[in-house]
Amino acid sequence: MSIRIGIYGYGNLGKGIECAVRQNEDMELVAVFTRRDPAAVKPLTGSAAVCSVADVEQWKDKIDVMIMCGGSATDLPEQSPKLAAMFNIVDSFDTHAKIPEHFANVDAAARDAKTVGIISVGWDPGMFSLNRMYANAIMPNGKDYTFWGKGISQGHSDAVRRIEGVKDAKQYTIPIEAALESVRAGENPELSTREKHLRECFVVLEEGADEAEVENAIVTMPNYFEDYDTTVHFISEEELKREHSGIPHGGFVIRSGKTGWRLENNHVIEYSIKLDSNPEFTACVIVAYARAAHRLAKEGAYGCKTVFDIAPAYLSAMDGAELRAHLL
Amino acid sequence: MSIRIGIYGYGNLGKGIECAVRQNEDMELVAVFTRRDPAAVKPLTGSAAVCSVADVEQWKDKIDVMIMCGGSATDLPEQSPKLAAMFNIVDSFDTHAKIPEHFANVDAAARDAKTVGIISVGWDPGMFSLNRMYANAIMPNGKDYTFWGKGISQGHSDAVRRIEGVKDAKQYTIPIEAALESVRAGENPELSTREKHLRECFVVLEEGADEAEVENAIVTMPNYFEDYDTTVHFISEEELKREHSGIPHGGFVIRSGKTGWRLENNHVIEYSIKLDSNPEFTACVIVAYARAAHRLAKEGAYGCKTVFDIAPAYLSAMDGAELRAHLL
Repeated sequence: MSIRIGIYGYGNLGKGIECAVRQNEDMELVAVFTRRDPAAVKPLTGSAAVCSVADVEQWKDKIDVMIMCGGSATDLPEQSPKLAAMFNIVDSFDTHAKIPEHFANVDAAARDAKTVGIISVGWDPGMFSLNRMYANAIMPNGKDYTFWGKGISQGHSDAVRRIEGVKDAKQYTIPIEAALESVRAGENPELSTREKHLRECFVVLEEGADEAEVENAIVTMPNYFEDYDTTVHFISEEELKREHSGIPHGGFVIRSGKTGWRLENNHVIEYSIKLDSNPEFTACVIVAYARAAHRLAKEGAYGCKTVFDIAPAYLSAMDGAELRAHLL
Repeated sequence: MSIRIGIYGYGNLGKGIECAVRQNEDMELVAVFTRRDPAAVKPLTGSAAVCSVADVEQWKDKIDVMIMCGGSATDLPEQSPKLAAMFNIVDSFDTHAKIPEHFANVDAAARDAKTVGIISVGWDPGMFSLNRMYANAIMPNGKDYTFWGKGISQGHSDAVRRIEGVKDAKQYTIPIEAALESVRAGENPELSTREKHLRECFVVLEEGADEAEVENAIVTMPNYFEDYDTTVHFISEEELKREHSGIPHGGFVIRSGKTGWRLENNHVIEYSIKLDSNPEFTACVIVAYARAAHRLAKEGAYGCKTVFDIAPAYLSAMDGAELRAHLL
């Protein structure tokens, strides 16, 4: 019998989940939950129900894993514990500093309801965290580096769009090649914020807005751009739509470490991803962990988990013998 | 209390284990077991006992995890099940085709004795297997590529040394850059053996041996060289010692996959390692899994396991809260 999946929130991530479920033969999408008018939401999966979030409790026994597709700022802190009291859930909570608090809240709800909640799944946090952790466990004597991009940063694009005179904008985060090369060469450089990433903005101005003023407002913006070398390009609305409507992203996790009795040997471990669609890739990771959530719940391993707590085999549709024969 | 480690076989891998244990504060090396005369073996760790393999049973309650450092051809198939009947063990069994059989043998011994046996730990099998498995679970629709090198292949070096007229030799396996670039670009190429790797040999001849004859014997050798483009360099014994006495290795695991409702988006996941010392890095991976073996045994999770079966957190000296706060 298929693993019955629900999607809670049908934006870019929710649509990515829908596509990912379609690629996994042991799963089916049974319902999409929305805060909008259900009649206005048309999923690509013809067989999926569209329901109001207000009716979610009625689906308690009809969904094996609910995938939480809200935002980390205000949605998930409230929704994940609430839904974990009814369903096994997976979320992609990505406010790193608040993970311990979110973990505790989901854990309490999940233990109480005898469900499994897997939080902070995706690529960072997620696959990048896993690679940081494995590399740290393997080489205790070493140094970690994480680079993001080249890709669209939603938060930085939004910050540019809030500037007066800006009609629309996209911001790319770009790792600096010289820094990457130094890290890969095992030189263990100390890198400032400015030395690790560039920022590049493509901006459509409102009629009559002043280029120099907008550019200055961007490059001096505290927290977002001040500590970086930032390039600003003013382009037409048509060009922005034509050339910059994708959601690519990617990045690199590198650990350089030393071994030997006198630490005479150097080693570099590198994990990287290059993504055409950030939300679709994130969705693929989440769906693999939904399989794990379903299995863990069947074993009675209730409570909150992260990617660190889950044996890799739980993610795969293959059984142990197949995995050993084909992928080990 | 420290995790008490034993080393069974004190060659390159055993020495690497000794160095790795020294970097992990929660472990101590208590004894080295050898088939040689124990009086002739002097470990770097002054406090470690040196014992004959014949006396290993006396150490049953004094060692938490025995690390098996024999070869995969004849040592481990016999030694790992035998030692798993007395100790928790970790081995690096790397004959891919015989893993199912080896798993069954170690599993039977470990379940019977209530021990934990983790097999096929290192980088391939090991970290490369893990990365193949995670990437397959994330992107069911995709294609896997594994490249090895640049590095010394022990088996191919030995094969060259067995040729008449060869006094000594080292063989490097080298991934072909054009193939790597095509894979990274998401082109999903079909690659022949010859298109993936080059082989480069550095050979010291016996006096009076014929260069052309030896070169021909190498490049036409079935299984080892016939299917590759191979370069042969004849050098002096001094140069071989000076330039080719290290044991570097490395490699790449890449999966390229497609997502989206009509598979319109492409993604590439790449894991790579660059190692100054193959045995020391392998040893680091094994030692992290020795920590896992010890913890699993304390929880009563007996039997044979592979890297697929073990939650990442078991490898780390940090606890769950620390991991979530610092590495997630």
